[in-house]
Amino acid sequence: MSNRFVIILAAGQGTRMKSKLYKVLHPVCGKPMVRHVLEQMKDLKAEKIVTVVGHGADMVKSELGDECQYVLQAEQLGTAHAVMQTKELLKGKQGTTLVVCGDTPLLKAETINALMDYHIKQNAKATILTSFADDPTGYGRIIRNEQGHVEKIVEHKDATDEEKQVREINAGTYCFDNESLFNALEKVSNENAQGEYYLPDVIEILKSEGEIVTAYSTDDFTETLGVNDRVALSQAEKIMRQRINEKHMRNGVTIIDPEQTYIESDVVIAQDTIIYPGTIIKGKTTIAEDCVIGPHTEIVNCSVDSETTIRQSVAHDSQIGASVQIGPFSHIRPQSHIYDEVRIGNFVEVKKSTFGKGSKASHLSYIGDAEVGDNVNIGCGSITVNYDGVNKFKTIIEDNVFIGCNSNLVAPVKIGEGAYVAAGSTITKDVPSEALSIARARQENKENYVQKLKKKRTN
Amino acid sequence: MSNRFVIILAAGQGTRMKSKLYKVLHPVCGKPMVRHVLEQMKDLKAEKIVTVVGHGADMVKSELGDECQYVLQAEQLGTAHAVMQTKELLKGKQGTTLVVCGDTPLLKAETINALMDYHIKQNAKATILTSFADDPTGYGRIIRNEQGHVEKIVEHKDATDEEKQVREINAGTYCFDNESLFNALEKVSNENAQGEYYLPDVIEILKSEGEIVTAYSTDDFTETLGVNDRVALSQAEKIMRQRINEKHMRNGVTIIDPEQTYIESDVVIAQDTIIYPGTIIKGKTTIAEDCVIGPHTEIVNCSVDSETTIRQSVAHDSQIGASVQIGPFSHIRPQSHIYDEVRIGNFVEVKKSTFGKGSKASHLSYIGDAEVGDNVNIGCGSITVNYDGVNKFKTIIEDNVFIGCNSNLVAPVKIGEGAYVAAGSTITKDVPSEALSIARARQENKENYVQKLKKKRTN
Amino acid sequence: MSNRFVIILAAGQGTRMKSKLYKVLHPVCGKPMVRHVLEQMKDLKAEKIVTVVGHGADMVKSELGDECQYVLQAEQLGTAHAVMQTKELLKGKQGTTLVVCGDTPLLKAETINALMDYHIKQNAKATILTSFADDPTGYGRIIRNEQGHVEKIVEHKDATDEEKQVREINAGTYCFDNESLFNALEKVSNENAQGEYYLPDVIEILKSEGEIVTAYSTDDFTETLGVNDRVALSQAEKIMRQRINEKHMRNGVTIIDPEQTYIESDVVIAQDTIIYPGTIIKGKTTIAEDCVIGPHTEIVNCSVDSETTIRQSVAHDSQIGASVQIGPFSHIRPQSHIYDEVRIGNFVEVKKSTFGKGSKASHLSYIGDAEVGDNVNIGCGSITVNYDGVNKFKTIIEDNVFIGCNSNLVAPVKIGEGAYVAAGSTITKDVPSEALSIARARQENKENYVQKLKKKRTN
Repeated sequence: MSNRFVIILAAGQGTRMKSKLYKVLHPVCGKPMVRHVLEQMKDLKAEKIVTVVGHGADMVKSELGDECQYVLQAEQLGTAHAVMQTKELLKGKQGTTLVVCGDTPLLKAETINALMDYHIKQNAKATILTSFADDPTGYGRIIRNEQGHVEKIVEHKDATDEEKQVREINAGTYCFDNESLFNALEKVSNENAQGEYYLPDVIEILKSEGEIVTAYSTDDFTETLGVNDRVALSQAEKIMRQRINEKHMRNGVTIIDPEQTYIESDVVIAQDTIIYPGTIIKGKTTIAEDCVIGPHTEIVNCSVDSETTIRQSVAHDSQIGASVQIGPFSHIRPQSHIYDEVRIGNFVEVKKSTFGKGSKASHLSYIGDAEVGDNVNIGCGSITVNYDGVNKFKTIIEDNVFIGCNSNLVAPVKIGEGAYVAAGSTITKDVPSEALSIARARQENKENYVQKLKKKRTN
Repeated sequence: MSNRFVIILAAGQGTRMKSKLYKVLHPVCGKPMVRHVLEQMKDLKAEKIVTVVGHGADMVKSELGDECQYVLQAEQLGTAHAVMQTKELLKGKQGTTLVVCGDTPLLKAETINALMDYHIKQNAKATILTSFADDPTGYGRIIRNEQGHVEKIVEHKDATDEEKQVREINAGTYCFDNESLFNALEKVSNENAQGEYYLPDVIEILKSEGEIVTAYSTDDFTETLGVNDRVALSQAEKIMRQRINEKHMRNGVTIIDPEQTYIESDVVIAQDTIIYPGTIIKGKTTIAEDCVIGPHTEIVNCSVDSETTIRQSVAHDSQIGASVQIGPFSHIRPQSHIYDEVRIGNFVEVKKSTFGKGSKASHLSYIGDAEVGDNVNIGCGSITVNYDGVNKFKTIIEDNVFIGCNSNLVAPVKIGEGAYVAAGSTITKDVPSEALSIARARQENKENYVQKLKKKRTN
Repeated sequence: MSNRFVIILAAGQGTRMKSKLYKVLHPVCGKPMVRHVLEQMKDLKAEKIVTVVGHGADMVKSELGDECQYVLQAEQLGTAHAVMQTKELLKGKQGTTLVVCGDTPLLKAETINALMDYHIKQNAKATILTSFADDPTGYGRIIRNEQGHVEKIVEHKDATDEEKQVREINAGTYCFDNESLFNALEKVSNENAQGEYYLPDVIEILKSEGEIVTAYSTDDFTETLGVNDRVALSQAEKIMRQRINEKHMRNGVTIIDPEQTYIESDVVIAQDTIIYPGTIIKGKTTIAEDCVIGPHTEIVNCSVDSETTIRQSVAHDSQIGASVQIGPFSHIRPQSHIYDEVRIGNFVEVKKSTFGKGSKASHLSYIGDAEVGDNVNIGCGSITVNYDGVNKFKTIIEDNVFIGCNSNLVAPVKIGEGAYVAAGSTITKDVPSEALSIARARQENKENYVQKLKKKRTN
């Protein structure tokens, strides 16, 4: 394989996004567009990847880090000008240089690989990535000659009626013989309406010099989508979502409705797990076999072990064991560790707590900053009082404890193994193992009081 | 511009809707179909808008109010008969009269404007709105003559094989020279299978009198959709939803999945706000910049200030400040006013209350009929007891108060500035500023009680 | 009508499903594929329905029960071999035999009926169900002769360029003259690459014997979808969902977004009910007129009476009366019976309880194993303490009771008619009718305590 170089164009403003956020940083399925592009380009085994930055340069660099090199295009004078900024890093080198836009998040490494291989095989000085549009209106058309080489690219507005019939369009991604590229770039002029230096002019220059320019077409038109506004952004999101979901389905995950299932690209899901609609799974989440997730569930950065059910719930940054049941309407907040066979029921919030094997908090509880042992039963409405207005404190609930309903455990406090807290108690001191702790007032029934009450009110 | 008159046909029964609700009153994106039509027609600067009512006349009138005039079609004897009912109001006037159906909610004012302008320019006595159907089966076809004028409309069942190939179809919206219209109407007969007076017969009459009839075609077939059953109703809803969402995206709002985002037509959303899937935004809601709304959130008639997050929650008829965090699983009920930097957390209900700047109710609380000051911390499970079974009372919580978990504040009651209510207390009397208020029983630990308990149970 | 026999092929492994669950048992809209097929076949009035089982034979039999007969195909040697296993039950009988695959859940009885009628009318020995594919790549093409009969089926890989243009494809469903079928089956050989006995070979044999083979084509290509992987499974689910939702819409149910509404096939919904997006309705649920269901609601095996609203909630296996309001964020668990005009509000869980007419539990409550009378008001945060760690007990709340907020009712316990429980009380003994019951500590205000507290903390 000859040397490969990659130039990612990421300097434009993106006015039509109407955003404070720089265009190539807008996320698609949770990941900035330019990162999608970079991740695919990294599979090409290129000698160098150079990202041309301009507007929002610092934010783009901070997003991509040291995974590529950068050059600054201080003024935006067109795509040829942008490529020219890489001169110091690339000019004079032998090899093939790919130029790709940072706003084409759907391009696949395999397509680019095939493009670059084709380029070499055709002995071309430039090769254009193309695709076939059902309705090519607005796109630059690829006009081929008898040998099947590219004769020219015609912009829609300049096309003859016959040329307008051509459905093969310029996808805006090119590869070049590196030396030919930089030679031609020197000759690009800005004598046009916008006063800009356009990269497609390089094609014209190479043709005028009698060089071979070819085109490699991908079957998948969607791959070449460039995102210029938020309508296109939502289309890219939809196509990426379909790709991700199809991958999971082919791997043996049942997705009841892939159109309403939102899985980010780094999520791992094992076979025979079922995902119900309205489910959002993000970040570094892994889900094991035979789980049931959703409907209407959001899981972010969690590991979920096998045969666990999470429905109508939210879970973030936590570890969840096997055969756990969560929901409906539960909220697992970060740094929680839920062991096997736990049940977290409706209207229960868990925060920064561990729940030992087989423990239950079935209803209306808040368990925060707590260590809950095995086989603990936390009654409905029970609360760890972890905050006194200034500091947060820890609650320890040992194995086999039974916490009665509507209890308050005022931290720091420890409930010893096998202890029993009576319903309605506010516990402020440690409870020894096997003890019953109670803190409540005696019940008094005032007979016929309601009649008196009513009388009083009507007076 | 010549005088313009508009007739909206809204008298039909709508049998195929299978509904107690009168057809044109079925809502599309939250607004009755006939109101969509009227709102577009109001942009035409017409001299008069006359709605022909019949079935459900009173409800239609009460929906549209005094924004148009009405005539009653007591018996439903066909569309020409319906138009004839406007005779007293319109006959003898000079100008152009548009006839439009109340069940075409997707028609746009700009299209109708173009139709009416074209009508005048063509010097026509009638102009038909048409569109091009991919599959025209079932529609009336527009047969044009050599001059491009309309020769006739052919119903599908009467069409020759050649005519069936015609894809230009009658959209059921017409404009007429007003005097010609009423002259022709007098000649329409009901000698047909149904015994009805049909408006398209006017076209035939005008043609037979040698008048020019033209057709103006819109590019957007969907615009001409007539809603006759609830399948079509759901299609109209989908198209209207896309239109609304595209408008917001082009304005700089990120909508992750426009197919699962339900925004009514009067909602205003500022740039760089992100809407997650499953979100429903209704009524007069306005959302400022940089908010994050959804997933699975319903907002009705709220104002939401910038940088606020509302997720997996429901909020109705309330004012919500900037940098507020709501959800997941919060419920903001009407007449609440949430100031800046407030946090309303999971399983919290707020009703008819104010929340001062920086205050928090993070978990499992009900705050109703309350005035909460600034920097108040309402502990988990705390409740304003605002109802005694007969009346509702107010709770006042002043600035910097700390309410311990699982407390009851029995209204009417006031918690003075900086006071502290101990967890598990039921507060029935006012608490002075800076006081600690406590109302709970002493904790008693009964050692080894659990063993006794178990013994007792097994005996 | 001649005798009809049905053979359902349900023995294959389904490797591409990548599942522990046997292919034909994967559900579509909540019902295993093979059950969909069987249910349609039962409408054919066949003498016998024989299901050929193999992989997962016991589970398939247990799913279908005694609604059909079974034969075992111990080794999977091809579709002709599978049909051959029915020899003992079917050979020698006069009539028409349908062979259908257990992975075609979208086939409709009416189509099969038409297929079998056509077969008889054409005096054919075999008739193939066909449909027209927009893109027939990969499918077997139907090549017809001058009489319109089937000349042959050509597999895609064996097709000439001309044959590849044919859009009529083999749907994999056949009917045969029963005697001809078994005669031909004896002649099918396994001399092919896979060494299997293929059913389409029967067609070739019959043709070679000069018999008439015809094809009956259905307009609806989707009907013939065979499910081989989970991508196809999700497509089948989507088409079935559309069918179900269209049926309800044509019956007078408004479905705001049929693409995000998940209704299983046995659900019954009456006219003028409105279903909001994200709603899932399963099992034997019936919903009466004028209800509002959703958004984001899950209802399983419930009966819901008229004018009831259930929004952002979950309800399972319960009876829900008329004019009831449930949600947002309510959870009705099995064996609950909610009478008319009840209100179950946010963050309320009801389990195995009755709620009498007009009663309310508006916020943050758990009512389990309870009998609640009429006109009861259960205050916010109130809980039935139904579990002591070993047993569950019952709570009885009679008519017109008022339960104050954050109360615990420790079961077994009975609150007599018209009684009043004060907020924050833990009730362990019965409360007589009309009594006020109170169990709480006296409030003590410690003046200026907060300053002391702060001082203490900073020391």
